[in-house]
Amino acid sequence: MDRYGDPHLNDELNSLNDVEHLGELDGKDEDEEKLWSDNSERNMSIRQPLLRKRTNVTSQIAVIGANVCPIESLDYEYFKAFLVFAGCNIGLATAAGALCAYIAPAAAGSGIPEVKAYLNGVDAPSILAPSTLFVKIFGSVLGVSAGLAVGKEGPMVHTGACIANLLGQGGSRKYGLTWTWLRYFKNDRDRRDLITCGAAAGVAAAFRAPVGGVLFALEEAASWWRSALLWRTFFTTAAVAMVLRGLIQYCWTGKCGLFGKGGLIMYDVSAAEAAYNGYDVLAVIFLGVIGGVLGSFYNYCVDKVLRTYSFINEYILLALFLLNIHLSILIMKGPSFRILLVIIVSSLTTICAFGIPWFASCKPCPADLDVKCPTVGESGNYKSFQCAPGHYNDLASLFFNTNDDAIRNLFSSTREFQLPSLFIFFVTVYALGIVTYGIAVPAGLFIPVILAGSVYGRLVGRFFHSVSALDIGLFSLLGAASFLGGTMRMTVSLCVILLELTNDLLLLPLVMVTLLISKTVADSFNKGVYDQIVKIKGLPFLEAHPEPYMKHLVAGDVVSGPLITFSGIEKVENIVYALKGTRHNGFPVIDEPPFTESPELCGLVLRSHLLVLLKAKYFTKERVRSGRDILKKFSPFEFAKPGTGKGLKLEDITITTEEMGMYVDLHPITNTSPYTVVETMSLAKAQILFRQLALRHMCVVPKSQGRPPIVGILTRHDFMPEHILGLYPHIEAHK
Amino acid sequence: MDRYGDPHLNDELNSLNDVEHLGELDGKDEDEEKLWSDNSERNMSIRQPLLRKRTNVTSQIAVIGANVCPIESLDYEYFKAFLVFAGCNIGLATAAGALCAYIAPAAAGSGIPEVKAYLNGVDAPSILAPSTLFVKIFGSVLGVSAGLAVGKEGPMVHTGACIANLLGQGGSRKYGLTWTWLRYFKNDRDRRDLITCGAAAGVAAAFRAPVGGVLFALEEAASWWRSALLWRTFFTTAAVAMVLRGLIQYCWTGKCGLFGKGGLIMYDVSAAEAAYNGYDVLAVIFLGVIGGVLGSFYNYCVDKVLRTYSFINEYILLALFLLNIHLSILIMKGPSFRILLVIIVSSLTTICAFGIPWFASCKPCPADLDVKCPTVGESGNYKSFQCAPGHYNDLASLFFNTNDDAIRNLFSSTREFQLPSLFIFFVTVYALGIVTYGIAVPAGLFIPVILAGSVYGRLVGRFFHSVSALDIGLFSLLGAASFLGGTMRMTVSLCVILLELTNDLLLLPLVMVTLLISKTVADSFNKGVYDQIVKIKGLPFLEAHPEPYMKHLVAGDVVSGPLITFSGIEKVENIVYALKGTRHNGFPVIDEPPFTESPELCGLVLRSHLLVLLKAKYFTKERVRSGRDILKKFSPFEFAKPGTGKGLKLEDITITTEEMGMYVDLHPITNTSPYTVVETMSLAKAQILFRQLALRHMCVVPKSQGRPPIVGILTRHDFMPEHILGLYPHIEAHK
Repeated sequence: MDRYGDPHLNDELNSLNDVEHLGELDGKDEDEEKLWSDNSERNMSIRQPLLRKRTNVTSQIAVIGANVCPIESLDYEYFKAFLVFAGCNIGLATAAGALCAYIAPAAAGSGIPEVKAYLNGVDAPSILAPSTLFVKIFGSVLGVSAGLAVGKEGPMVHTGACIANLLGQGGSRKYGLTWTWLRYFKNDRDRRDLITCGAAAGVAAAFRAPVGGVLFALEEAASWWRSALLWRTFFTTAAVAMVLRGLIQYCWTGKCGLFGKGGLIMYDVSAAEAAYNGYDVLAVIFLGVIGGVLGSFYNYCVDKVLRTYSFINEYILLALFLLNIHLSILIMKGPSFRILLVIIVSSLTTICAFGIPWFASCKPCPADLDVKCPTVGESGNYKSFQCAPGHYNDLASLFFNTNDDAIRNLFSSTREFQLPSLFIFFVTVYALGIVTYGIAVPAGLFIPVILAGSVYGRLVGRFFHSVSALDIGLFSLLGAASFLGGTMRMTVSLCVILLELTNDLLLLPLVMVTLLISKTVADSFNKGVYDQIVKIKGLPFLEAHPEPYMKHLVAGDVVSGPLITFSGIEKVENIVYALKGTRHNGFPVIDEPPFTESPELCGLVLRSHLLVLLKAKYFTKERVRSGRDILKKFSPFEFAKPGTGKGLKLEDITITTEEMGMYVDLHPITNTSPYTVVETMSLAKAQILFRQLALRHMCVVPKSQGRPPIVGILTRHDFMPEHILGLYPHIEAHK
Repeated sequence: MDRYGDPHLNDELNSLNDVEHLGELDGKDEDEEKLWSDNSERNMSIRQPLLRKRTNVTSQIAVIGANVCPIESLDYEYFKAFLVFAGCNIGLATAAGALCAYIAPAAAGSGIPEVKAYLNGVDAPSILAPSTLFVKIFGSVLGVSAGLAVGKEGPMVHTGACIANLLGQGGSRKYGLTWTWLRYFKNDRDRRDLITCGAAAGVAAAFRAPVGGVLFALEEAASWWRSALLWRTFFTTAAVAMVLRGLIQYCWTGKCGLFGKGGLIMYDVSAAEAAYNGYDVLAVIFLGVIGGVLGSFYNYCVDKVLRTYSFINEYILLALFLLNIHLSILIMKGPSFRILLVIIVSSLTTICAFGIPWFASCKPCPADLDVKCPTVGESGNYKSFQCAPGHYNDLASLFFNTNDDAIRNLFSSTREFQLPSLFIFFVTVYALGIVTYGIAVPAGLFIPVILAGSVYGRLVGRFFHSVSALDIGLFSLLGAASFLGGTMRMTVSLCVILLELTNDLLLLPLVMVTLLISKTVADSFNKGVYDQIVKIKGLPFLEAHPEPYMKHLVAGDVVSGPLITFSGIEKVENIVYALKGTRHNGFPVIDEPPFTESPELCGLVLRSHLLVLLKAKYFTKERVRSGRDILKKFSPFEFAKPGTGKGLKLEDITITTEEMGMYVDLHPITNTSPYTVVETMSLAKAQILFRQLALRHMCVVPKSQGRPPIVGILTRHDFMPEHILGLYPHIEAHK
């Protein structure tokens, strides 16, 4: 990087040697600021030299390399500056894209839809794999640092869930991180609870909002909820809050640089007065309605852009191949193309950030200010950018800033922005947010939506300036609320998260009304953004409500194909062939004469349990019952659910031809109380049962007597990662 | 009342005529206070003359008659004063007790356990009847006014639920309040949702905590939750917040007296600094542990006291009868005895409030104060009570005050209390809270628990004074949190309610830790106070988790007794006899040859639907199917669930002997998709299915073929209001 190249700058640096030692007094910012401003007064052309002196109030994740090239002087060569700026940004973005594209493609995007799907029962191993965790953390740091229009909140939720998954599997054997005490999580329910807690912890840490984290986990992430889970997530986020609070307090002493800045409340607006009248409420209703429309349009665009990226990714290569452009194909193989997209979007973002402020007119600094104008280094509203001394560029303080600081500027009630600046920023940020989501970089949606929403709110506030006395900063906050409500469609959790972000308890009624209105308006156009992404990714999400068509079908209508059943005491051969020949995870066991008078449904046996039983080889030559004592020969955790990808496979078991002819008693491992529905049960009611009880297999039994005791099995659709586009029925049946 | 009897007072009143007109300038308190204090300086013996000038910052419900007899001067005759005070209190309490005992016994107590039970599916009509609503509102006003150790929060939840129930039933025909558009609530689920919203609105209004209301409804009130309900309750509480906010804003102009005082935040502690270190956290953990123990002991005592009252109520009368004291029996009949109990408890409370402050020593007023000392009229810490001018009695400012103001005093960080005063107040309030719950007065538990908890917290704060720098007011708040956690065992909702009560976002981590610790400690001793009361009242609450013994039973084990089934086309006679002879609400319908090959379970028919069908008299002479077209002859809402007590009764239908011999086709009104379990299904799993899907009837079908197609029905235990004490199995079966 070329920052030391300018001899003038070096001169200035030398002249500042006398304050260089202040670096050891980190945290005493007021003194420092005072000294800096003294210096500035002595010499107006002095610019803050390096990153280490910048007062960056962003949070811990976003600081590495965030806008590392502050170029704010007319003395600079702008083109060179642009190259350095673009170089940093594109370099960081490319690194993030490469991590994503080559190591863990599942780490791209927000991660909240994936966590949501996982908690719904979609067992796609890559979603929460350790490699995804690694890429999510570092990719998110790199992506945010590159100045892309992405947030860190979604990735932090995903990170939390990944860590919880790692713990829930008893650690990672592959990476040598294992603990035996974690074996207590070797069942689906506790593992699911742990991951819910992880997601809650992610929100709690990202927004410093412990209660918001609990509610997010409840309202958005979890598909099933029980009272024990409520207090477990609450415990988790309380721990997060204590740790966060402890670290912040520790860092107030100045020992950890930038992290110590800001307290538990990220965008404090509590100072603003919260009086409002009927006109204000009308203005807020207007804001909510338009916010809802814009929010749902945002979702629509994200959907289209995601489909377009996916289309390009799949078909451009084919087109190149057909056109015999082999060289290009070599370069443009799948991951390479995704990285190219990252580079394009990053370039676009950089051009916007550096280019657009040029269009804003320089304004003279207001006279009666208690802050420096133009701002020196520190984030503020009065960035000079290309302007002459004594003038500032308000657009630069939005574009040429971290997202966090831009939001803080927009929520502020004192700072003023020109109408064209706000409008330009709104359009740019709205568009950038849409095109950025979907590139191969961990990308949260919260921050871009809050950013666009708060500009929108400020614009509406300006529009209603004559009739509404409501503070412009509060309009900005309500705009953010309306956009969040319009895209994400949450209510209570967004409300509490906003409350904990801004500490504006007195404004709560207005925030609630805005959220409700924008959610209601947006719901009439399309679904929430996370639901849309789940659908686009082809994750077989099981909805809480049955589809309308299900009311016209009965359970017996949807079971088809050959049903594979086992006898209570079954030949080993049959079991092995059935396991080889199908991908089914559950098989009905039927007791037949001579053991019972007529064929009876004994229960359901799981593939994983069958494999354990086969491996132990407690076979008998004759067709006799071995009794439940056989279970005593297994250790308590042999039948426990193994970690992802760690379970027994059929290939691990060798069975001799002689053993193939022997029998094995399936009764000890059969679940004799499977949930059943009669074949004439309405499919909608069957779906409710299936979903409410979080089942994986449900037996369909015949209505009339004298027929085989089972008609078929209703089960969940498996996730096929090769399908990215496409819609699936939510319940699949095999007969 | 004797307030005008004292000629000296009248003189003083006359001398104050010059400020009498200030009554028209209500709300301009600062001016008023200044004038008052000017007057006071002119004449130190002047006392505030009447209620109309008192600055009462309590909320809207508690103001009618709250401590209407402020007697604070040495010039008064104390005994007379006591009589007036006691007269007011006991009179108000007796009125509340009489309302409860004679009109609606169901209105006594908190009401939250009843709402909880109703939402769990306990259909006891009196719980939410209009008479209960009436008594709940006025009884609560009277009870709180009488200075009893009761809160208004529980009753407001119950009030909200009652209003919702009234709406959900299409209004009250008895009281002439009906709307036709309310017919859309004529089904169980929407009615349940509406009542949940009502409960949430109650909390939102009581604590001015809209988000807390939603979470309370979620965590404590509702047994079943779905995402639509979340946003419905959120909408309800948002409306409550807007209305409340509007009224408060309107009242800031001084047009509605006492209501305008205080804003949306009832006990604002946001000014207190929220820095804490390791020692503080240790102190808070100690506070949480002991708070949990004391909270669970509170529950234990409430339980014992309730059982004792119930015992006395039932057996004293019997004893008197056996002793031939007939005269006493005439006087002491059920309700009368319950009123006597109210009088005793009210007397006790009055004696404590008036008597105990005498034991506190008078302290000289501190020199450097910016408030008046002793306080004149206004609620404050420096009540003179019996003390000489220039001295004050700190115990009087706790006892001789509204509960709300006492809590505000305790949460305050600047006011000082003597250690013995705090200790005496703690013991008294703890004991009064316990003996007061259970008398025939609407009595919330929140306020007494918060009051006792905040004194406890202040005591702990004093204890840790040397090691912890945490503000004493914050200790008080944490003490209240620990008591709430220890008695009510909620987590998130209490946390948010406390947050919205006190506006202390920065203290959130400590509040969370305190709640978690006290809940965990208390859970190891007994159940939450509402669960205990549900149990004592004999409400057949269906728990979310099966009892351990259920794992060892199967569904077939618990069905017993004769099973009454109907044929698909049944003789009218049989139906009438079955309806007369049993209290069952659901009957299985079985199709038999010649309509099917073998007997088959057709479905389940409800008593209410059978009555509608019988009344319409679409009978046939022969055993033939009438087809589904018969349903077209009914209007859409005839089969809708009627309001409580408004449904058809068997006595309303007259059936001739000729009709008795005819047939009726039950197929059109049969639910052909009842949820079924096989008789060998584990009872625990059957209970999960029953509870998760909120069923009322579940069919148990045989496992093997060749038997009748239904073994029995699992249903809910009916609520028998005559049983007050006693524990019931939660699922009853009839065979």
